[in-house]
Amino acid sequence: MTTEFDLLQQLRSIATDPAARGLLDDAAVLGDLVLTHDTIAEGVHYLPDDPPASVGWKLAAVNLSDIAAKGAVPAAALLSLTLRGDGEWEQAFLDGLAAACESYGLPLIGGDTIALPAGAPRVLGLTVVGRSDGRVPARSGGQPGDALWLAGTIGDSAAGLQLLGADPRSTGVLVDTYRRPVPLLAAGRALATGASAMMDVSDGLLLDCARLAGASGCGADLDLDALPLSSAFVAERGAGRAARLFAATGGDDYALLAALPAGLDPFTLSLPADARLTRIGTLAPGSGLALHDSGGAVPLPERLGHEHRTS
Amino acid sequence: MTTEFDLLQQLRSIATDPAARGLLDDAAVLGDLVLTHDTIAEGVHYLPDDPPASVGWKLAAVNLSDIAAKGAVPAAALLSLTLRGDGEWEQAFLDGLAAACESYGLPLIGGDTIALPAGAPRVLGLTVVGRSDGRVPARSGGQPGDALWLAGTIGDSAAGLQLLGADPRSTGVLVDTYRRPVPLLAAGRALATGASAMMDVSDGLLLDCARLAGASGCGADLDLDALPLSSAFVAERGAGRAARLFAATGGDDYALLAALPAGLDPFTLSLPADARLTRIGTLAPGSGLALHDSGGAVPLPERLGHEHRTS
Repeated sequence: MTTEFDLLQQLRSIATDPAARGLLDDAAVLGDLVLTHDTIAEGVHYLPDDPPASVGWKLAAVNLSDIAAKGAVPAAALLSLTLRGDGEWEQAFLDGLAAACESYGLPLIGGDTIALPAGAPRVLGLTVVGRSDGRVPARSGGQPGDALWLAGTIGDSAAGLQLLGADPRSTGVLVDTYRRPVPLLAAGRALATGASAMMDVSDGLLLDCARLAGASGCGADLDLDALPLSSAFVAERGAGRAARLFAATGGDDYALLAALPAGLDPFTLSLPADARLTRIGTLAPGSGLALHDSGGAVPLPERLGHEHRTS
Repeated sequence: MTTEFDLLQQLRSIATDPAARGLLDDAAVLGDLVLTHDTIAEGVHYLPDDPPASVGWKLAAVNLSDIAAKGAVPAAALLSLTLRGDGEWEQAFLDGLAAACESYGLPLIGGDTIALPAGAPRVLGLTVVGRSDGRVPARSGGQPGDALWLAGTIGDSAAGLQLLGADPRSTGVLVDTYRRPVPLLAAGRALATGASAMMDVSDGLLLDCARLAGASGCGADLDLDALPLSSAFVAERGAGRAARLFAATGGDDYALLAALPAGLDPFTLSLPADARLTRIGTLAPGSGLALHDSGGAVPLPERLGHEHRTS
C-alpha cells in the first residue's frame, strides 16, 4: 500500500533541485521565474453543475494566487484541456479562462488538448509562469517576532460553497467569491518587497498558517477577533467564535499571509488603494499554533483546513 | 455542436501573444525559454497494461522531444499527477519519469498531485521548460529548395505497438522503442544552428512533413526509398513500399525533421557521433506533399498520420 504521503516523499526524493524549494512552497523559483501548476478534476475540485466559465476563471485565478504569493508578475500560461462530449462545456470553460487571462495580463501561450473516454471526469491543468524583478519570499523565511498580516478576507468562499450545497441555485457575493476568486497580485508584489515569508491561503488559514510557521521553524499566535471578515460573510454567518473558526478553516480564500519584520509598517509599502490588510498575529519561538480572542485562549479545532494537496 | 476544430480556433483566438507562435509549433518561445506541455490519458495515449515505469519515461521523453526540436536544453519540469487506488501504479510511474529526468538532465521542480474518483482514467501531464542560447527554428521558416533531413529512424514504434496488439507480452527492440523513445536533444541542438525550420516527428512523418511544409508556405517532395529504417524494423516488416508507407504514417517516432538551406552540409554541424542523419527530400514551391521512389510517383496514402492533437 502506497499512501499519498509515500508518493509525496518519492516526489521530494526526485525534486532535489533548489528551484523546487523542496516542494514545500507555493511555486518553484528558477532564476527570475516563478512557476506553478494546478490541476483540477470534475467532482473533486469543482461541482459538475458549476458554471463552466467559472471553472475556467477559477483555474487561472488559483494559479495566479500562487504567483501573487511570490510577488511575481504573470508572464505566460500553458493549458491542459480535456475534451469530452460535444465540446460546449469546454467552450464556456475557455471563455472564463480567457476572461481571467485578460483581466490579469496572463498570455496563454501553449498547452495540450486531449480527448477523454466517454464518462471520464474532466481533468484540467494550468501551468503559470511569473517573473520577479526582486525578492521572492519563501514560506520558510519567517522569524520569531515577525508580525503576521493578511491581505484580503477569509471565509467568503467556504460560506458560498455551503450556500450552494443547500441550494445549487444560490447567488450573491459569497457564491461569486467561491466561483470567481480574485488573485491579489498587486498586494503580493508590494508585500514581497518586505516580507520575510509569504504564501497564499488556499487550504484554510489555520492550516496554511501552521505550514508557514512550521516551514519557518516557528510557532504562531493568532488573534481570532482580528481575522478580517467581509460584511457579506458577517451578514450570513455572524462574527462570533464559531463563525470565525469556520472562516479560519474553510479554505479557497486566496488571501495572502505574510510575515513582516516587527519594525516594518506595511502601509509604507506600495500597496494598491483597495488592499485590505490586517494584522492577525505573530510568529513565536517554538512550534505549533496558538489561538486567542478577547475571551482568552481558544482551543484549536480538530480540522485546521483541507489536507487535499500533496504538492 | 462544438468540434475539436472549433475549440482549437477558440484557443488560437485567445493565444494571440507572439510567444504562442499561433499554437502551430512544437513549443512556445518566451525570450530564451522554450515551453511545452503534453497530457496523456489512460486508454487514449497509453494502454492500461503498459508498464507504468514506461509511461513515466515516455511522458518525459515526448516533452523533451519537443524541446529537442527547438534546439533547447532541458531546464525544468512540472508534473501533474493523478492518484487513483493504492498508489503502486503511480510509484512505478514516478520511477520511470525520474529515470528519464536523470538521463536527460531535466530537474523536476514542481507540479500538483490530485486524487481521482474511483474508476476514472488516469490523466498525466508534464510541462517542460527549456533554454536556448541561440536560434529557435520554427516550423514555418522553410524555403523552397531547402533540403529535408531526418535525424533518427521511423516506423519502429508503430511496429512495436502492432506487436503488442498481437501479443501484449511481446518484447524486443521495437517494443522498447514504442515504450521508451529517446529524445534527440544533442542532434536538435546541432541542427538548430542551421535549420530554417524544424519539428519533431510524433504523429507520422507524412503528416508532420505536410505540416512543416504548409506552415512554411511550401510543398514537399519526399523520396520513400530514402526513409531511414532500423534493422529491427526491416527484419520485422521488410523494406518494400508497403513497409515504408507504414513507417511514414505510423507516428510516435520522435525523430527530428529539419529543413536546411540547400548549400548547408549538416555534417559540418556539431552533431553527436551516434546521430543518424538522412536526406529524405526537398521543400518545393507551391503546396502539398509529393512522394516518389525508384519506381516513380507514389500515391499518397489516405491517412498521413494521427490527427489526434489539437495543439
